[in-house]
Amino acid sequence: MSRLWNFSAGPAAMPQAVLERAQRELLDWQGCGASVMELSHRGKLFMGLAQQAEADLRELLAIPADYAVLFLQGGATQHFGQIPMNLAGEGDSADYIVTGHWGEKAVSEAAPYVKVNVAGSSKEQHYLQLPPRDSWQLDPRAAYVHYTPNETIHGVEFHAIPEVGEVPLVADMSSNILSEPVDVSRFGLIYAGAQKNIGPSGLVVMIIRRDLLQRATRPMSRIFHYADHAANDSMLNTPNTWGWYLAGLTFQWLKEQGGLTAMCERNRAKAELLYGSIDGSGGFYRNPIDLAARSRMNVPFTLHDSALDAAFLKESEAAGLLALKGHKALGGMRASLYNAVPLEAVQALVDFMGDFAKRHG
Amino acid sequence: MSRLWNFSAGPAAMPQAVLERAQRELLDWQGCGASVMELSHRGKLFMGLAQQAEADLRELLAIPADYAVLFLQGGATQHFGQIPMNLAGEGDSADYIVTGHWGEKAVSEAAPYVKVNVAGSSKEQHYLQLPPRDSWQLDPRAAYVHYTPNETIHGVEFHAIPEVGEVPLVADMSSNILSEPVDVSRFGLIYAGAQKNIGPSGLVVMIIRRDLLQRATRPMSRIFHYADHAANDSMLNTPNTWGWYLAGLTFQWLKEQGGLTAMCERNRAKAELLYGSIDGSGGFYRNPIDLAARSRMNVPFTLHDSALDAAFLKESEAAGLLALKGHKALGGMRASLYNAVPLEAVQALVDFMGDFAKRHG
Repeated sequence: MSRLWNFSAGPAAMPQAVLERAQRELLDWQGCGASVMELSHRGKLFMGLAQQAEADLRELLAIPADYAVLFLQGGATQHFGQIPMNLAGEGDSADYIVTGHWGEKAVSEAAPYVKVNVAGSSKEQHYLQLPPRDSWQLDPRAAYVHYTPNETIHGVEFHAIPEVGEVPLVADMSSNILSEPVDVSRFGLIYAGAQKNIGPSGLVVMIIRRDLLQRATRPMSRIFHYADHAANDSMLNTPNTWGWYLAGLTFQWLKEQGGLTAMCERNRAKAELLYGSIDGSGGFYRNPIDLAARSRMNVPFTLHDSALDAAFLKESEAAGLLALKGHKALGGMRASLYNAVPLEAVQALVDFMGDFAKRHG
Repeated sequence: MSRLWNFSAGPAAMPQAVLERAQRELLDWQGCGASVMELSHRGKLFMGLAQQAEADLRELLAIPADYAVLFLQGGATQHFGQIPMNLAGEGDSADYIVTGHWGEKAVSEAAPYVKVNVAGSSKEQHYLQLPPRDSWQLDPRAAYVHYTPNETIHGVEFHAIPEVGEVPLVADMSSNILSEPVDVSRFGLIYAGAQKNIGPSGLVVMIIRRDLLQRATRPMSRIFHYADHAANDSMLNTPNTWGWYLAGLTFQWLKEQGGLTAMCERNRAKAELLYGSIDGSGGFYRNPIDLAARSRMNVPFTLHDSALDAAFLKESEAAGLLALKGHKALGGMRASLYNAVPLEAVQALVDFMGDFAKRHG
């Protein structure tokens, strides 16, 4: 068995210690005689696991008591639609700040359920920067303000939580949740697909201020209603039990690593190392994002000559560096540096990049 | 490590050979240097796995080419709502045949999106039998007819596909899919939560006649639209990749076992053994379901004296027989006999039941 350095944007690298533990106990979880996947979600054993995972997440993010934590399905994309279904009444509008591909998608999926007002956008700047806060056209009567703190494809990240007044702030944190401490009380709703910084795909973690659970008024199945999920401890129906289990192991691993302050330092060091290597390559590599908006999680970069892309990908894979191909929308390369990617992996990447530039420069 | 016999109703027992393979390759799938959970769903490796799983399912169920196969999220419960959203236009009605708890739930989750006509029900008979076909009040203009071929909680099963004319027949096969061969061409839509006969929870497999994909007319997010999932090979967003992988391993295992004809024989033998033991216990154990409607998958039974329930559960668990407690709606016991539960497990259960009756009779 040999594990390689994995820079996938998602589903992404998971902590090796988490995978090793899951492997050890795959057929017999805690001596119960069955796999954790084979247990009723309503049994005492799984309920204990589920509660521990929530408690650990609450500790990691210092989640206030007036927020519910939900473990849902459907990916962030499903919740692009389900959030307006729950937070906006018929005829309401909501403000969207669009800073890349995922913000655009959040808008198009929400449109059937709410009047979308694109209150701020950097589309005309090709998403190379964030729209300045004073350019946003926020509506104080909006049902909520939605934004994407980190754009996985475009590699832009907010490094401060925007001030939006009394309107609830909704954040798709799929690609940067748990990468640093965050003041949850500034948000109305935080949600994240698990497959980047939490666990395997097929799980969504949501943190929602409890008063917002009462907003839904339109007719819908109970299964789409966040209040019903909250009232049933996310067991309104059978949850993704394997995802929940691995999320719990990941939360424990984060605590062992020193929590989110330690992860934040590590993530900053990793990003500085890679951006430093790009910026110091004399133009061989290039990241075009405004310095103030560069993502610590997803680093897109191009080679000075795109004719070298194929060689870069082939040689990097041979050097044990996986999944560096950029998203098709942008081309070039992308390295994702989520929590589970160690500094050692980024060092190996930077070493390779230097060597490649020397040989092809 | 010791595996016990697991009679859980779901999430349920999985084939041990499948779990062992998943365990072996958990950290390094097919020598790629990463876990299958850490791979992009759009990469060549995972796409190959996904296509093979679909091909194997098509082979097992002899699915005609004019049916799409989808790998979705949300559990069957989400699709209780999503099916009318997709198959019924505003103002349409749909016929529901209700033969237990899950049929009732399908009705209540569908009601926000379609006029529900309960065309047949055995509720007044406490779901101890199926409503006779000639009692059904079907509407030839209904958008579809929905039924639950096997009721997991009540333990009643249709042993033939009902004739409903030209109206598309929709079946929630969560608890009996792949337990026997089935003529897919008789259905408009078949769907199943994976956590009983397919794999881990968090995955839904859907088989839908392609012409029905064009029915959706109401405004909704693309992510709720089956046609969009079909057009994107179920990769409209990140699917549950781990669930898809284990489903694929289970389909391979089923082929190795001789396919669904062999599974059907095995399942019949298992059910006959357990019902024979109950019926031959001189009244110590009792299953109240009409003989013609008894489920091969879920066998609820009571002890002649419910004061013995606690002792039965304690002693059966000590004997290595897990998850025999009945659903809270019915009390008593329930043994689920899905594909992954071998005859040997049922023999161990029957031996224990005989011994327990002798000691407490």
